[in-house]
Amino acid sequence: MVNKNHLKAKNVEVVCVGTELLYDRVNTDINIISGIIARAGLSIARCIIVGDEKEEIKETVSISLKRSDIVFITGGLGPTSDDLTREAIAELLNRKLIFSENIWQKICDRFYKRGLKEIPEINKKQAYVIEGGEIIENNVGTAPGMILKEGNKSLVLLPGPPVELIPMVEEFTESLKEKGTIKIYRFGISGIPESVVEERIHNFFTKKDIKYTILASPQIIEILILSSGELNALSEIEKFLEESFSENYLGIDPPPLPVIIGNLLKEKKLKIALAESCTGGLAGKLLTDIPGSSEYFQGSFVVYNNILKKRILSVPKTVLKKYGAVSKECALYMAKGAKRKGKADVSISITGLAGPSGGTSEKPVGLVYIGIGLPKNKFHIHRFIFPGNRERIRERAAYQAFELLRRYLV
Amino acid sequence: MVNKNHLKAKNVEVVCVGTELLYDRVNTDINIISGIIARAGLSIARCIIVGDEKEEIKETVSISLKRSDIVFITGGLGPTSDDLTREAIAELLNRKLIFSENIWQKICDRFYKRGLKEIPEINKKQAYVIEGGEIIENNVGTAPGMILKEGNKSLVLLPGPPVELIPMVEEFTESLKEKGTIKIYRFGISGIPESVVEERIHNFFTKKDIKYTILASPQIIEILILSSGELNALSEIEKFLEESFSENYLGIDPPPLPVIIGNLLKEKKLKIALAESCTGGLAGKLLTDIPGSSEYFQGSFVVYNNILKKRILSVPKTVLKKYGAVSKECALYMAKGAKRKGKADVSISITGLAGPSGGTSEKPVGLVYIGIGLPKNKFHIHRFIFPGNRERIRERAAYQAFELLRRYLV
Repeated sequence: MVNKNHLKAKNVEVVCVGTELLYDRVNTDINIISGIIARAGLSIARCIIVGDEKEEIKETVSISLKRSDIVFITGGLGPTSDDLTREAIAELLNRKLIFSENIWQKICDRFYKRGLKEIPEINKKQAYVIEGGEIIENNVGTAPGMILKEGNKSLVLLPGPPVELIPMVEEFTESLKEKGTIKIYRFGISGIPESVVEERIHNFFTKKDIKYTILASPQIIEILILSSGELNALSEIEKFLEESFSENYLGIDPPPLPVIIGNLLKEKKLKIALAESCTGGLAGKLLTDIPGSSEYFQGSFVVYNNILKKRILSVPKTVLKKYGAVSKECALYMAKGAKRKGKADVSISITGLAGPSGGTSEKPVGLVYIGIGLPKNKFHIHRFIFPGNRERIRERAAYQAFELLRRYLV
Repeated sequence: MVNKNHLKAKNVEVVCVGTELLYDRVNTDINIISGIIARAGLSIARCIIVGDEKEEIKETVSISLKRSDIVFITGGLGPTSDDLTREAIAELLNRKLIFSENIWQKICDRFYKRGLKEIPEINKKQAYVIEGGEIIENNVGTAPGMILKEGNKSLVLLPGPPVELIPMVEEFTESLKEKGTIKIYRFGISGIPESVVEERIHNFFTKKDIKYTILASPQIIEILILSSGELNALSEIEKFLEESFSENYLGIDPPPLPVIIGNLLKEKKLKIALAESCTGGLAGKLLTDIPGSSEYFQGSFVVYNNILKKRILSVPKTVLKKYGAVSKECALYMAKGAKRKGKADVSISITGLAGPSGGTSEKPVGLVYIGIGLPKNKFHIHRFIFPGNRERIRERAAYQAFELLRRYLV
């Protein structure tokens, strides 16, 4: 579906069309699209955000089209009256808007599926295609995307909502990736702070005159290297990272931790159950983000209230009274309970203080106990104090638990 | 410190300078700065992202300066050789770079404080001020910001790292806010598709000549109105929306659904427990995102595997055999089990097919049953077919469950 001519493109611009009201919303688009494009090995010259103004869109795209080979335009393809991208581009290229029965049928089907009998007349707007436009299917929403050729330039129109945008950009860039002239190498490190990673690698890469970037997130530390063509020193770099980080080195292009965990469990034919307190279900959510996780994921006991810790996971009353819910003793009983009640071979328990209030000098906000239950009745409890706000503490707790389990399983 | 002349500004552009490698990082800047500026009531005409190329920066800023009253430029003020914003702007405005002893002293002090004795020579770069520049202090990093006047236009140079950028933009916009001429009104609608909302409101707003934008997300539909000064028709709009959407109208500036649910539960002194299958813990995660949710949230039974549905929530084996796990019967037993086992007054159960595989013509991917358990042994089961991918289906299922509970509770 994607024209191979795109592959010759060297220069890419992104124009995001969106309401002037909520720039932080619109920017999510730029974030997503530019991230995907960059990872496909294309260099982006410029990103421009403009409001839902027809003349403004025309002017901006017209300038971008002069400078670039591919212009991505996101947003403004919706059914409402302020969605003007389709009209603006048709006018700019001096082409007609043609009603597509086929697209209209697909839009109707989506509404019928949702149990809606009457389809709002305004949705007809989304069934119009710019003359000569090649359709990019939208499997998530109603607005299809469009690829338009203008001489040797390409215009790619895509809808704004991230859930619709992501798969469509990915589809478009998938074929570009193969012949991308710039290659990005991504090495994963887990369970070590960013600054320690930097200290360990700095001299090696500097001596080799290799430019790198370190990206840190609660999930993983990534070392990124941009290379025109194949990286000559690749095997040498891999060897160095393996030696420097041993079991913390996750390899090239590592999948997300929940996928790594899932693969390990499948490989060892183990089933897992969780006991969550402060994460409130987040750890279960992350593990079940992965399609097919039902093969190893039994369930999660989100025992937020102490009554449920006792009733469901049999954490002894005396333990809760003497040590409190945020304690290594409670984490141990939770991990045991999850394994037993969840009919599982391995278990994770997480209990902590996510804040913002409720901390004491003895048990500060950020204190989290993580229990790991393993086959043969083995249990390990780890204590952490995570920095950051409530969201960050919960996220770190979940990923740290996955990282601990990973290291016990490899 | 901020010149009051800025207040007269009507048109703002943002130029972000940053590495081409990691567009998704650079965009964090745009996200932040544009969010803060928009909330200060200024309308942003354009955001542009360019790489660390001197000529590119000069050309872009020169165009922005022609069109706009204020141009924010972020990034490229660091000490390393690829940081060129300071030099580019000095050249563009044809002004000198002047070494500031004062700024140099402050940079040195920061290093001493960190226990460093020798200050890298490259940091001297950051002590240069563009002729006529007014300094914006940076209390977090080494690069100060700068305000430059060019005729009646303003150029605001700011560092890229978000932790440094945020307080500096906020300081700059704080004084703008007071006299902000533009106000944003946000009205919430829940449980109705975007296009239906548009159809119901279009005539009313068009007749009143009020410009509006509709934003859709799995959580909520928002109607946004931008107004210079107070909105005269406010009470009339509210009345209209109440009449048009009755219990689906969430009011002005509604908090997120999990907060609305939490407030309703607290108000009515009710405790809630969940039974989740396809959402895998997401619904519990969303409810416990809210600090203080332990007041009403008992826990969630994430019974992903059928064994746990039986063992933990007492869903009869015959029900699972005859109707399957994705059925109204199973949803009912899950809601009952959650309420009983969770020692709760109300409950939510969610069971469905999130895909991508496993769907049949009878039970397609996206099919979700939601059970709501209420006091006095009342239970309601609802059936949905949600469009979209796995992530979207799970998110919609969770928010739809909250929306149903909200309507039963109000």
